[in-house]
Amino acid sequence: MEICKIEKITNCKHLNLFSIQYRDRVENKKNWMFASRSDHPDPFSQSPGLPDAVVVVPFHIQEEKLVIIREFRVALGGYQYGFPAGLVDKGESIVQAGKRELFEETGLEVIKILKQSPSIYSSSGMTDESISLLFVECKGRPSNEFNELSEDIEVLLLSREEAAMLMEEPDLKFDVKSWIVVSIFANYGIIS
Amino acid sequence: MEICKIEKITNCKHLNLFSIQYRDRVENKKNWMFASRSDHPDPFSQSPGLPDAVVVVPFHIQEEKLVIIREFRVALGGYQYGFPAGLVDKGESIVQAGKRELFEETGLEVIKILKQSPSIYSSSGMTDESISLLFVECKGRPSNEFNELSEDIEVLLLSREEAAMLMEEPDLKFDVKSWIVVSIFANYGIIS
Repeated sequence: MEICKIEKITNCKHLNLFSIQYRDRVENKKNWMFASRSDHPDPFSQSPGLPDAVVVVPFHIQEEKLVIIREFRVALGGYQYGFPAGLVDKGESIVQAGKRELFEETGLEVIKILKQSPSIYSSSGMTDESISLLFVECKGRPSNEFNELSEDIEVLLLSREEAAMLMEEPDLKFDVKSWIVVSIFANYGIIS
Repeated sequence: MEICKIEKITNCKHLNLFSIQYRDRVENKKNWMFASRSDHPDPFSQSPGLPDAVVVVPFHIQEEKLVIIREFRVALGGYQYGFPAGLVDKGESIVQAGKRELFEETGLEVIKILKQSPSIYSSSGMTDESISLLFVECKGRPSNEFNELSEDIEVLLLSREEAAMLMEEPDLKFDVKSWIVVSIFANYGIIS
């Protein structure tokens, strides 16, 4: 497999489509489309770079609960259960961005980093978007007074039993990462 | 929050950009961009519909190993560690699609469905793409003789120790779902 060239085919501010010409393993020329948050995606780079975003998996240790948020997602036209997350600002470390986003979206404070993933890819069949997952212990009382105006967020602290019940409800919209973690938390408790 | 209107702003075959106009919680008009595999995404629907794709998490019970694939991903310009996956064909059930994709990409056969997620969202800040995760037990010997020409896939059967070692290697590219599952498998063995 070999990448021949990459072409930007839209000119939008936050998200664009790109077309890649490549040769498959029998040397046929093919095209592939993907979406990117980057203005200059680099499919020639050998290792994952900095992630686009940080996603925080917060355990509230004192309450023995997993924290998730119920958030309006414009692309889904409704509320989705997921984790606090956001883009990593320029000059910010992943841990700094994770602490900031957790506080802004839930009012909770990070007290310990349990685990940090490298840059991992959201869905590489259609996008080069990457995130870093940050498993943390947190403390405090949930609040949405630090939300931005464009955010519409409810904070939930789930016991294992509440997590199990949430998984049983039909018609809820879950993010992939939160679905996996909530499902494992319901069965096994706090693991990372 | 309220969705006002949705506009398709590209006209490509497999992936398009859409712009949504919405009102935020203080009634300001805003715009949001997202990518979709669908020609007619429906942000007004109340519940998750059928998933775009199925992602198979295969445990090889006889060998006590987790199956992952190392696959060339055009958007990343390189190899990524992930799970067998593919779009659900018209008229196909999620389980049928999962069995077909596992066989085509690895040569392995599903013997038991352990768990099936509802439609869950890959990264709803930038796309309405949804998948169903299918945890399965499988049997057989890995083979890539059923790969398509555009596919370049290596099948790996990981013991817990091998999973732990893989997670330690720098510069590998992992899909989000496989990173979470491989990491938990390394620490706790087969759980779903």
